[in-house]
Amino acid sequence: MQENLSNMIRVALIGSTGYTALEVARILLSHEKAELTIATSRSDEGKPLSEIHPSLAGRCDVALQPFDPKTIAENADVAMCCLPHGASAESVRDLALAGIRVIDFSADFRLSSVPLYEKWYGVTHPWPDRVGNVVYGMPEFFGDEIANADVVANPGCYPTSAIMPLAPLVKAGLIEADDIIVDSKSGVSGAGRSPKLGTLYCEANESIAAYAIASHRHGPEMQDLIHRIADKTVNVLFTPHLTPMDRGILSTIYARPVLQDNDTVESVSSRLMAQLRDTYRDHPFVHVVDHLPATKHVAMTNHVQMTVRVSGNEDQPGRVIIVCAIDNLSKGASGAAIQNMNVMFGIDQMTGL
Amino acid sequence: MQENLSNMIRVALIGSTGYTALEVARILLSHEKAELTIATSRSDEGKPLSEIHPSLAGRCDVALQPFDPKTIAENADVAMCCLPHGASAESVRDLALAGIRVIDFSADFRLSSVPLYEKWYGVTHPWPDRVGNVVYGMPEFFGDEIANADVVANPGCYPTSAIMPLAPLVKAGLIEADDIIVDSKSGVSGAGRSPKLGTLYCEANESIAAYAIASHRHGPEMQDLIHRIADKTVNVLFTPHLTPMDRGILSTIYARPVLQDNDTVESVSSRLMAQLRDTYRDHPFVHVVDHLPATKHVAMTNHVQMTVRVSGNEDQPGRVIIVCAIDNLSKGASGAAIQNMNVMFGIDQMTGL
Amino acid sequence: MQENLSNMIRVALIGSTGYTALEVARILLSHEKAELTIATSRSDEGKPLSEIHPSLAGRCDVALQPFDPKTIAENADVAMCCLPHGASAESVRDLALAGIRVIDFSADFRLSSVPLYEKWYGVTHPWPDRVGNVVYGMPEFFGDEIANADVVANPGCYPTSAIMPLAPLVKAGLIEADDIIVDSKSGVSGAGRSPKLGTLYCEANESIAAYAIASHRHGPEMQDLIHRIADKTVNVLFTPHLTPMDRGILSTIYARPVLQDNDTVESVSSRLMAQLRDTYRDHPFVHVVDHLPATKHVAMTNHVQMTVRVSGNEDQPGRVIIVCAIDNLSKGASGAAIQNMNVMFGIDQMTGL
Amino acid sequence: MQENLSNMIRVALIGSTGYTALEVARILLSHEKAELTIATSRSDEGKPLSEIHPSLAGRCDVALQPFDPKTIAENADVAMCCLPHGASAESVRDLALAGIRVIDFSADFRLSSVPLYEKWYGVTHPWPDRVGNVVYGMPEFFGDEIANADVVANPGCYPTSAIMPLAPLVKAGLIEADDIIVDSKSGVSGAGRSPKLGTLYCEANESIAAYAIASHRHGPEMQDLIHRIADKTVNVLFTPHLTPMDRGILSTIYARPVLQDNDTVESVSSRLMAQLRDTYRDHPFVHVVDHLPATKHVAMTNHVQMTVRVSGNEDQPGRVIIVCAIDNLSKGASGAAIQNMNVMFGIDQMTGL
Repeated sequence: MQENLSNMIRVALIGSTGYTALEVARILLSHEKAELTIATSRSDEGKPLSEIHPSLAGRCDVALQPFDPKTIAENADVAMCCLPHGASAESVRDLALAGIRVIDFSADFRLSSVPLYEKWYGVTHPWPDRVGNVVYGMPEFFGDEIANADVVANPGCYPTSAIMPLAPLVKAGLIEADDIIVDSKSGVSGAGRSPKLGTLYCEANESIAAYAIASHRHGPEMQDLIHRIADKTVNVLFTPHLTPMDRGILSTIYARPVLQDNDTVESVSSRLMAQLRDTYRDHPFVHVVDHLPATKHVAMTNHVQMTVRVSGNEDQPGRVIIVCAIDNLSKGASGAAIQNMNVMFGIDQMTGL
Repeated sequence: MQENLSNMIRVALIGSTGYTALEVARILLSHEKAELTIATSRSDEGKPLSEIHPSLAGRCDVALQPFDPKTIAENADVAMCCLPHGASAESVRDLALAGIRVIDFSADFRLSSVPLYEKWYGVTHPWPDRVGNVVYGMPEFFGDEIANADVVANPGCYPTSAIMPLAPLVKAGLIEADDIIVDSKSGVSGAGRSPKLGTLYCEANESIAAYAIASHRHGPEMQDLIHRIADKTVNVLFTPHLTPMDRGILSTIYARPVLQDNDTVESVSSRLMAQLRDTYRDHPFVHVVDHLPATKHVAMTNHVQMTVRVSGNEDQPGRVIIVCAIDNLSKGASGAAIQNMNVMFGIDQMTGL
Repeated sequence: MQENLSNMIRVALIGSTGYTALEVARILLSHEKAELTIATSRSDEGKPLSEIHPSLAGRCDVALQPFDPKTIAENADVAMCCLPHGASAESVRDLALAGIRVIDFSADFRLSSVPLYEKWYGVTHPWPDRVGNVVYGMPEFFGDEIANADVVANPGCYPTSAIMPLAPLVKAGLIEADDIIVDSKSGVSGAGRSPKLGTLYCEANESIAAYAIASHRHGPEMQDLIHRIADKTVNVLFTPHLTPMDRGILSTIYARPVLQDNDTVESVSSRLMAQLRDTYRDHPFVHVVDHLPATKHVAMTNHVQMTVRVSGNEDQPGRVIIVCAIDNLSKGASGAAIQNMNVMFGIDQMTGL
Repeated sequence: MQENLSNMIRVALIGSTGYTALEVARILLSHEKAELTIATSRSDEGKPLSEIHPSLAGRCDVALQPFDPKTIAENADVAMCCLPHGASAESVRDLALAGIRVIDFSADFRLSSVPLYEKWYGVTHPWPDRVGNVVYGMPEFFGDEIANADVVANPGCYPTSAIMPLAPLVKAGLIEADDIIVDSKSGVSGAGRSPKLGTLYCEANESIAAYAIASHRHGPEMQDLIHRIADKTVNVLFTPHLTPMDRGILSTIYARPVLQDNDTVESVSSRLMAQLRDTYRDHPFVHVVDHLPATKHVAMTNHVQMTVRVSGNEDQPGRVIIVCAIDNLSKGASGAAIQNMNVMFGIDQMTGL
C-alpha cells in the first residue's frame, strides 16, 4: 500500500499517548497519501506506539522516541503537536525553527494577542512574536493561508462547533452580535486520557453536569475568532457540559435575529438557513440539514451537521436556536488536523477522512 | 412486615407497565406506611406485575387486573394513575367519582385552562370542569392544598427542574421574567417504555440531541406554573435534549438579573443563592449547593440539587446561570407522587423516600 | 426521624472515600434502626463526607476524622471497615481490641488459612491468629455465627455470585465438584474509585474485556468457601470481565450434572432448581427465577436472582448452566454488610435494604 | 472522486434500513474502488437513504427503490443482501438467476444441509439446491472459492469470533474437539434496528444478561463450520450475552488442551499461540496478541484480536482459555462483506477497510 514512499506525506506525532494522537494515527492508517513516520513521548520512550494504544496492534509498528527537533525534521514533512497548552508553544517553536511545518493542537497560537492568552491561560507565552501571526486551522475560512502556513493553530473542539454556525450569521448581520449563548455538551474524551477522578467511568457514566460556567477558555476563543471572521465584536456566554459518551459535541446556541419588516418565524428561519447553505455550498464536510442533528450522526467522522430553528408565534419571531454537531476528536481535533495537512500539502482536503 | 394492615395506606397502580409505574412499585416495597394492593393494565391483564417488571420477582405478588373504578375504590385509598395524556383524564374522573383520591401522572390537569390544554395537547378535554381546579403536586409550594385534595396533578419532569429554581427568583423580583431560557438534558426513561426507533439502545446510546425545540408541551407548563406561584407572566424558551443515560434531568437555565446599585457578580450571585436557601430552608428534598450539581448526585432519589452562577466581569454582572438536577423518574414523577401521597395522608413527607 | 437515639445502632465508617463506603452511607440514610455516627479518612480529614460524595449534600452532616480506635469504639456500636486488602487487617485488629464489633470489607479474614492468604495476596498477614477463625458474612449460610461475631469477613463480590448458586448444588451432590467454570461480568465500580487508566470512562465505555484469567484472587475464595459450606473440594476456573456499566455482576457458570438413571434435560433442570428453591425458601433476598436474570433486575438492591439451564438433547443432558445476578456494590459489598449488621444486632435482616 | 466510473465496483444494497446496511454504505463512502449505486427497501421506497440514516446526510444521494432483480443486475456488479433469515434466500435466488453476484448476510446458505437449516430456522428452505453449495465468506479459509463465487454466505457475527480461533487449533489437534464452551458478549446492534422492548435503551443500558442459552442458532453454525475447516466433529456449548454497548463481540472460549509429555502451562500456551500466529501470518486483519483483547480495540474496524491463556499450576496445565474480539457489525457482518467483495473482484482485500 505504501510502496511509493516518495509520494507520501511523512507525519510526526509529538506527544503520542492521548486520544487526539491515537485519532491521528488511526486516520493515517487508511490515508492513501500520508503515513506516520515518527512518534514521540517523554513518558513511554522506547515502547511501541501500539502498546500504548492496543487498537493499533499489528497495524502500526512505530516506536516512541524522545523529542528531538532535528531528527523529526529530517524524517517528517509535518509535525502534529499534541502537547498540553503551555508546553506546546516551546516545542512548536523548536520544530518550526528546525524547518518542519507544524500543526499545533494546543491553544497556544489560537488567540489574537499575548495579553488575551496570558489572561486566560495563566502562563507567560514562550514565543510571543508569533501570537496573532499564526493561521487558525479552519479551512472553511482560512484555506489559502493554511495552504502556505509553516505553523497552523488547530481549532478547539467547542469553538469549532460554535464558530462554524455563528461566524457566517454574524458576518451577514443576521443575528445580534452581543447576545449569544452557547450551551455545549461534550463527550468525555474531550477531558483527555490522564487518570482523574472526574473522568472515571463510575463518575461520568449515567450523569450529565455543567462545568466551568462562564469561565471556560474556549469562550474567549469563540469571541476572538468570530470577530476575526466577521469583523464584529461579539459577546458569547459559554457553558460546557460533560456528557456520558465517548465522543461528540452538540452545541445548542441561542441568539437574537436581526429582524426585517414583516418577518415571521418561517422567514427568519429560511433566511438563516439560506445564509448557512450559501456559506458552506463548496465545503464538503459541512452539512446544513433540516433534521435536528445528533452527535451520533457525525461520530467518527470529520463532518459537521447544523440546523436553525426560530421560536415564537408565527408573525412574532422570537429567538434563533442553532444546533451544531461535530465529533470532538475528529472535526474538533485530529480530523481537522488531517484536513489542514491535506490543504497544506495541496491534496484533496477529504483524503483519508 | 405488613402485619398491621389497618395502618397502611393502600395504593392502586393504574397503568402498570411503564417506568413510572415500576418506580412507584419499587418505592412502595420499602415504604413502611403504604403498600401496593391493586395494579391494573389493559394489555397484560392476569399476569403478575413481576412478570412485566422482572426486578420485582419474589418481592411483589400483585397480579394485573382490568380497570374497574368500584373495585379499586374498595381496595385502595389512593390511585396512582400512570396513563398517557388524554387517556388519563377519563380514568381520573371515574376514579374520583367512585370516591378514591387520585394522583394523576399525566398532564391532563396541570394547566390552568382548557384552551391552553387543548392547544398544546390537541384533544378535547374529557373533564373540563376540573381543569384549573386541581392542585399541582409540588408540596414545596402547594402543601396545604395537597393535604386536602381529592385529585392531585403530579408535575411534569422538566417543569419540576425549572419551576423549583425559577419560581422563587421570579416571585422575589430577582430575575427578569420575560427573558428565560431553559436548556434541559434528560435521560432516556423520560421517553417511556413503548418500543420506538428513537429510544432503541443503538440510536440513543453514545449520542445527544435536541428535540421539540420551542415546541415541547412542558414549556407552557413551566410558564403557567411559575405564573401561578410568582403571580407574574413569564416567557420561557425551552429546549429539551435526549441524553444517553437512564435517569436524570439537568436544566441549565439562563436569565437576566434585576440589578441593584453597585451590584457585582458576587453580590448578585449571593442574593439569588440566599433567596433560594431561604425558600427551601424547611423543605428537606431541596438542596441549594455550592458545587455544580450532576444528575448522578440525585439519581434514584427524590432530592433536588440547584445552584446559581453569574457571568460577567467583577463589577459588570452579566447573565444568571442556574443549574438544577433531579431524577426524572423520582422527583420528576414517582418520587413526587409518593411525596404527595405522604402529604395527602398526613404522614412525614420523607417516608419511604 | 432519629429522635430515639438510644435505640439506634451507631455505625462507624472506616475508609470513607470509595464506592462501598458511599453505598453504606446511602443505605443508612433510610435505615430506621441504624445511623452513621463517625467516618474516618486519612486523605480527607476534616472535610464533610458530603464533599467527597456530593450525592450526600444536605443529607448527611458527618465530618471525616482520623482513625482512632478508642474514639470509634466510644461513639459507635459497629465499624464498617472499607480499607484495601492488607491495610485492613491491622485496623480490624485495633478496632476489635478496642471492643467494637467489626465488619471487614477486605479479603483479609475471608480465607481459611494464612498460607493461602499469603500466597494470593502477597503480604504477611498482620493478625494471623484470627485467620480461619472469622465468620464469612453470608447470613444465608452462617447466620448463627454472624449473630454472635465480633468480626465478620464481608464476602467478595464475585464469590457471592458464585458461592450462592454453587454451594447448595455441590453439597447436595447434584453437580461434579471438580469441573466448574465461572465466567463473570462485573460493572466498573468493582474496580474502585482511585483514578487509573483502565477505569477511565473512555477506556471502559463501549468495551468489554476479560482480565486476570485464572489468576484472580476471588477464584480461591470461591473454592475455599464452597469447600467450607459443602464439605467437598471443588475446582473452579474463574474468569472476570470488565463490563461497561456502573454496577452489577452476572456470573454464567458451567458445571457437569451428576446424572441419575433416565435423566433428561428437563429432569436435571428440575432437580437443580428444586434444590436451590429449597435452600433459599426462607431467605428473602434470594430468588430462584424461571427467567434469565439481568443485572438490571437487581441493581441498587441486596437481592439475588439465579436460574438453571441444561444443555443437550432431550434424553442426553449435557452441561448445567447457572446464571446468577447480583449488585456488586450492594449484595456484593455494602448491602451484605448492612444485612450482616442487622443479623449481628438481632433486627430483621431486611431492615433498610 | 468518482470520475472514473468504469473502474468502480457497483454495489446494490438489498434491504437498506438496518445497521448492517448502514455499515455497508458507510464503508463504501471511503472505498476507492466501489460505490453504492442502488439501494432497495420495501418499507421506505422513494425516500433518500440518508433520511433513514441521518449520518449519511449530504454524503450519499441514493434513493430507495423497490426490489427488482433485473434493474439491480443492470446497475450493479454485486448485491449485498441484508434481509432477514428466511426472506433472504428467495431474493438471493432471484438476484443470482438475474446474473448478479450476491453476498448474503442472512444464515440461509451458511449451513451444510437442508435438514440442519430447517431444524434450527423452522422454515422450509426456498432454494434447497444451493444449500451446502455456497461458499462461507471467510476469506482467511475460503479465499479461492470466494474469488470465483456467484453467491457468498456472509458469516454470522458470533461464529466469526469462535471459528477464527478454534478452527486452526482443532484442525491441528491441539485442543479436544468434544468439550468446547463459547461464552460470548455482544453489543446491542447485533439485535437489529426493529423496535423491541428488550433493545430499548432503558432495558439494555446498565445491564448484562445471557439469552438463548444452549439454543442459539449460531451454535450449530460454529460446529458446522469448524467441522468443514478442521474435518473433525466438534461439540460447542454456546452462550450469548447482551452487553451494554453499541458494537463488539468478545468471546471467552474454554477448551481442553491435547497434552504432550512434560507439558507445562507455558508450553501449552506457547504451542497454541504459535499455531494461531502461523495460521494468520498472511492474513492482515487477524492479530494474535499478547495482551487481553477488549472489544474497543477493534471497534469500527474489520480487525480481529485473539489470545490464549492456560489455567493450572506450572506443570499441571488445566484448561485453555481463548479470548477473541471483533466488531460485530464490521468483521461480524458488513466489513467481512466488503472484504469478500474485494476478494470476489480481485482487488486488495483491505481496500476501504
